Amino acid sequence: MGIYRLSHVDITVPDLELAAAYYTQVMGLDISGRTSDRIFFKCWDERDHHCLAVRHDTRVGIDRFAFKVDRPDDLDEFETRIEAAGLPVQRVSAGEEVGQGESIRFELPSGHEMELVHEVEKVGGRLPLLNPPPIVPDLVGIAPPRIDHLLVHAEEVPEVSRFFQDVLDFRLTEQLLDGGGHQTIAFLERSAKPHDIAFVQGPNGALHHFSFWLDDWDHIRRAADILAFNGISIDVGPTRHGLTRGNTIYFFDPMGTRNEVFSGGYRPDPDFPTITWTDDRAGRAVFYYEGTLNERFATVHT
Amino acid sequence: MGIYRLSHVDITVPDLELAAAYYTQVMGLDISGRTSDRIFFKCWDERDHHCLAVRHDTRVGIDRFAFKVDRPDDLDEFETRIEAAGLPVQRVSAGEEVGQGESIRFELPSGHEMELVHEVEKVGGRLPLLNPPPIVPDLVGIAPPRIDHLLVHAEEVPEVSRFFQDVLDFRLTEQLLDGGGHQTIAFLERSAKPHDIAFVQGPNGALHHFSFWLDDWDHIRRAADILAFNGISIDVGPTRHGLTRGNTIYFFDPMGTRNEVFSGGYRPDPDFPTITWTDDRAGRAVFYYEGTLNERFATVHT
Amino acid sequence: MGIYRLSHVDITVPDLELAAAYYTQVMGLDISGRTSDRIFFKCWDERDHHCLAVRHDTRVGIDRFAFKVDRPDDLDEFETRIEAAGLPVQRVSAGEEVGQGESIRFELPSGHEMELVHEVEKVGGRLPLLNPPPIVPDLVGIAPPRIDHLLVHAEEVPEVSRFFQDVLDFRLTEQLLDGGGHQTIAFLERSAKPHDIAFVQGPNGALHHFSFWLDDWDHIRRAADILAFNGISIDVGPTRHGLTRGNTIYFFDPMGTRNEVFSGGYRPDPDFPTITWTDDRAGRAVFYYEGTLNERFATVHT
Amino acid sequence: MGIYRLSHVDITVPDLELAAAYYTQVMGLDISGRTSDRIFFKCWDERDHHCLAVRHDTRVGIDRFAFKVDRPDDLDEFETRIEAAGLPVQRVSAGEEVGQGESIRFELPSGHEMELVHEVEKVGGRLPLLNPPPIVPDLVGIAPPRIDHLLVHAEEVPEVSRFFQDVLDFRLTEQLLDGGGHQTIAFLERSAKPHDIAFVQGPNGALHHFSFWLDDWDHIRRAADILAFNGISIDVGPTRHGLTRGNTIYFFDPMGTRNEVFSGGYRPDPDFPTITWTDDRAGRAVFYYEGTLNERFATVHT
Repeated sequence: MGIYRLSHVDITVPDLELAAAYYTQVMGLDISGRTSDRIFFKCWDERDHHCLAVRHDTRVGIDRFAFKVDRPDDLDEFETRIEAAGLPVQRVSAGEEVGQGESIRFELPSGHEMELVHEVEKVGGRLPLLNPPPIVPDLVGIAPPRIDHLLVHAEEVPEVSRFFQDVLDFRLTEQLLDGGGHQTIAFLERSAKPHDIAFVQGPNGALHHFSFWLDDWDHIRRAADILAFNGISIDVGPTRHGLTRGNTIYFFDPMGTRNEVFSGGYRPDPDFPTITWTDDRAGRAVFYYEGTLNERFATVHT
Repeated sequence: MGIYRLSHVDITVPDLELAAAYYTQVMGLDISGRTSDRIFFKCWDERDHHCLAVRHDTRVGIDRFAFKVDRPDDLDEFETRIEAAGLPVQRVSAGEEVGQGESIRFELPSGHEMELVHEVEKVGGRLPLLNPPPIVPDLVGIAPPRIDHLLVHAEEVPEVSRFFQDVLDFRLTEQLLDGGGHQTIAFLERSAKPHDIAFVQGPNGALHHFSFWLDDWDHIRRAADILAFNGISIDVGPTRHGLTRGNTIYFFDPMGTRNEVFSGGYRPDPDFPTITWTDDRAGRAVFYYEGTLNERFATVHT
Repeated sequence: MGIYRLSHVDITVPDLELAAAYYTQVMGLDISGRTSDRIFFKCWDERDHHCLAVRHDTRVGIDRFAFKVDRPDDLDEFETRIEAAGLPVQRVSAGEEVGQGESIRFELPSGHEMELVHEVEKVGGRLPLLNPPPIVPDLVGIAPPRIDHLLVHAEEVPEVSRFFQDVLDFRLTEQLLDGGGHQTIAFLERSAKPHDIAFVQGPNGALHHFSFWLDDWDHIRRAADILAFNGISIDVGPTRHGLTRGNTIYFFDPMGTRNEVFSGGYRPDPDFPTITWTDDRAGRAVFYYEGTLNERFATVHT
Repeated sequence: MGIYRLSHVDITVPDLELAAAYYTQVMGLDISGRTSDRIFFKCWDERDHHCLAVRHDTRVGIDRFAFKVDRPDDLDEFETRIEAAGLPVQRVSAGEEVGQGESIRFELPSGHEMELVHEVEKVGGRLPLLNPPPIVPDLVGIAPPRIDHLLVHAEEVPEVSRFFQDVLDFRLTEQLLDGGGHQTIAFLERSAKPHDIAFVQGPNGALHHFSFWLDDWDHIRRAADILAFNGISIDVGPTRHGLTRGNTIYFFDPMGTRNEVFSGGYRPDPDFPTITWTDDRAGRAVFYYEGTLNERFATVHT
C-alpha cells in the first residue's frame, strides 16, 4: 500500500547534551536510545523507536529523513521504481541502524538522502492499550503527541515534486507558482494531512524545519509560553498559514535547527484537488496574518 | 486502494422543511439539491454533492449510509468480495441516485443498508482552489467543515466488525469487551481517524448518531452556545470520550435523530494497535468526564 | 472604601490528610500553614496567607467565610453599620487567627458566620514582582490563579440579599424570581465580577460551593481532564451558566464539599443594571447548555 | 467613589465613511449616533452611548479620552483636586456633547485632553436584562464586548503617572524603569484590571493605541482571522505581553490609528503590589514571545 508516515528525521548537532536537554525538557520528547555519538527521541503518543535522531557533528545539518512503508515487499517495489527513475538505491540491512530493520536509501534530486523502512522497533507509547486515559499526567515541556512533517529545500522543486508523485505515490495538496508559472513550493502527503513533506525552492540538501503536531490552538499558546520562558528564539508565530490553514510557531533549537509546532488544517483524501497559490499572494500563503515573509524565515536553513 | 471516506448518510424525517431549517440555520450546512421528497446537504469544506440526505417519511430512521472508494474497479472487487462473504449485492446505475454515479448496495449483518460509490458529483467547497483564505467569512450556525463518522447498532458486533475488517479492509482501532470477553463496541477506520464507523451492541438496523468534525475545543463551546441558543436538546456534553480521546457534544435534531460534533483524537496509521476497554470502564470509555452513561444515551436511537 | 475581595472560606473535613492531598495534588493549591487541626491553602497568584482553611471535624461543613476590607477603619464602620442592622458583632484580636490581624465576625440572617478582615499576612505569590514571566512552569494539578466566589444557601434570600446591599455595599448583578416574584437567587459583587457571593434558597447555614478562577475555556477542559484522571466526581460540566455567562465545572472534593472552576463572564461596573431571571428559565439560568438542573445540584450541600 | 471606567476615546480620521465601514464591519461595533462630522460607536455589551467617537479631520489623531465617575459630586471633587494640582479645568454643560451630561475637561501634563463624565446616555446593550442568553447570535466581525484601555505617550511618564495616582486615585500596577531608574512605562488602573490607561515615554499628546477586550485566547485567533481576511495591517501578534500577562494583537485601522484586542491578564485589587520591569527586560515586558520590540511598534503613533 506504500508509504504512510514520516518515520524519523536524522539531524546533526555540535552539542549532544544540549540537544538532549532541549528536546527532553523544552520540547518534551522521550529519549529512546543512545549510542556514543547519537541520541534517539520519540513523542509520547508514538510507539515506534524514534522520530528524531541527533548525531554529533561539528556542523548543524541533516543526515537523512525516513518514511515508513506498509508492507515488507513495498521496499522491493520502491527499489525497483526508484532505480527505474534513475536513482541508485542502497540497501541497509536489519541491525545496521538503531531501532529499525532493513531499509533502502537513495539520494533525491534535491540532494537529500531519503530512507524507506518497514520494520521499526515498537517501544510503545505513554498510554496503555488497555483502558487508556486520554491524557498523560506527567508530561514535561511542550510534549507533542507525534512528529508531523518536514520541509526541505530544492533547487528544482518541480523535479523532486514529480518524483514524489510519480514514483512514491504522494499527492500534491498545494503548490505556489512564481510569475512564470514555475513551481517554487510543493506540499505533498500520504496520510490524510495537508503535508507529510514539503519542498521550497532553495539550496539542495538543506533542511528548513521539521514539525510536531499539537491538538489545539490553545496548545500553540502553551508552546509559546514554554518556548519564551526557556529563552528559545521564536522565528515567527503564533500565527496561521494560508497553505494548510494550520496554526504554527517556528523557532530554533539551541543548536540552530528550525522546529515547528503545528495544529489544525484540513484532511485531504485521495480526491483532494491541488490548491494553487500565485506569487503575489506568497506572503499570505506562508503567514496568513502577517502577509509577508520575514528575511530570516526565507533565508535561514540547516 | 479501497474505501477512503464516509460519503453520505441518508436519513428519514417526518418534516422536510423543519429538517431544512435546522440543518442549514443551526448546523450550518448548505443545501446542494432537492427533489420532491428529499433534500441534500453538504458541509462548507466538502466538494462532493452531499454528506447528508434527508427523505420524507412518517418515521424517523436511516435509509442507508455510503462510503466512497478510490478507484472505479474497486466497486467490482468489493462486489466480488461481498458476495463471496454471502451477502447479496445490488447495482445502482449512474443516474438513479442524485449526485452520484454507479454504486453497489448490500445489507450488512447488522441489518443496515450500506452503499459503496466511486463517482460523486463535484459541486465544490466554499473556498476557492486559487489563493484560498483559511476562513469563510459568512458561515451560519455551527458550520462544521465536514462529516466525520457514524455510529450504528448491531445485535452481534463481532460479526459485523469482522466483516468490516476482513471484507472491507477497515482497521479496528478500539473495542469494548464485556465481562465474558464478548465485543460490544467496535471502532473501525479507513482514513487515519479514530473511527469512520462504529458499532455498538443494540437493535439491528438502528442509527445511534452521525457526527461532524470541528477543528478545536473552542469550536465545541461555540457549537454548544448555538445549540442552546436555538433550544436544541443536548444529550451529553461538552465532554470528552475515553474512546478516541475526542471532545464531543451529542444532541438531537428537531425530528429526533442524534447528531454529534466531534474534535480531537489521535491519528491512527496502519500499524496502530487496537485499544481494548473492559466493561468495568465502559463509563469512562464513552464519557471520560462523567464516568457513566446516561439512560438516554444508551437507549435512544433511530 | 469597603469590601473588595473574598478573602477565605473555612470549611470542615473529616480527613485532614486527604484534604491536603486533594487540594495540593488535584486542585493545585499551595499549603501556607498548618496547626494541629487546620491546614491553610493558597493559590499560586494570591499573595495573602490563605484563601481556604480546612479544619478537622467529624462533619463536613463550613465554619465561616471572610471578606477583605480596604482600610483599617472600615472594620469600625462596618461594625457600627452591622450592629445598627441588629446583628451582634464579635471582635477577633490580631493573633487569634492564623495569618491575619484583627477582624469582626457576625452571623448573617442566613445563619452563616461571616468575617471581615483588613490585615492579612502577605506570603507572596509564585511570580516575582521584578520582571515576572507570565507563567509558573512547575504548577501541579488544576492550579487556579485565585479563588473567585462562593455560593451559600438562605431560607430567605431577599433578607440576606438586602443586608449585603444596604449594609455591606454589595451590588446585585443578577436575581431569579419565582412565579410569585419572590427572589430565590441573588448574585452580589464588590470587585467588578459577576459575583463575589451568591445566595440560593435553601437551608440556612449551608454551603453550596466555592469556586476558583481559570483564565480560559481551554483551562476548563484541562481541569476536567485532571479531575477525571484523578477519579474526582464531576457534578456538572464543562458547561456554561446563563447567570454570569461563565464557563464552569462543578465537582466534589473527596470529603464531599462541592468545588467549582469558573471562567469568563462579564465585568460589572457600579452602573451595571441588575439582570432578572424568571422561574420558567431557571434551568437555562443555571446551566445554559442543559437547560435543566440535576437533582444532585439542587439538593446536595454541606 | 471616583473613576471606574474608560468611557470613550475621541479620535480624528480623514475619512468618516471608511471609519464607519471598518469599525462596524471589521471591528464589529454598533453605530449609536452621527452628526455632520462625527460618528459614535459602541460595543455590543456596553450600555452607554459610545466608547469611541471619530471626528472628521484631515489629520489622524486624538481629540481626548474620557473616564466615567461614580457619583455626580465626583465631578466637583475632581475639579477641586485637579485645579489644586495646578491644571485649569473646563466645564462642559449637559447637552454640549452628544450622548452625555455635564463633564469636566483638562489638559494632562502629557499634553492630552482628558475628560471626566458622570451622566452618560444609556442606550442599552444587545442582550436583554430579562432572561438573557449568554451570546448574541448575529454579531459581525470581531465584535468585542467592551473597550478595555488606552495607551498614550508622555515625555515625562513619572509626572503624569504621579498625577493619576495622587489626584485621580489610580493605582500603579506595573512600571518599567530605564537603566537610570527613570520610569518610562506606567500602567494604571481603577477597575480591577491590569490597566485602564498606560503611559509610555514618547511625544506628548500622542496616542499609541486603544484596546478592546476579548474573552478568550481563541477569540484572539478569530480576530486575527478576521483582520487578515479583511486585509487589515497587523502590527504584532497574536502574542502575549509580559506586562499584564495578557494576550494581544496590535493592528492599524485603515486610517492609521493603532487598535488592539486584548484578553487575559490578572485582576488587581487595591492591595496589588506594583510590578517593576528593568530596561534589559523591556522586550519581554512588551512582547513576551518575541522578546523584542519591532521598530514600528516603538515609533508609530497618532
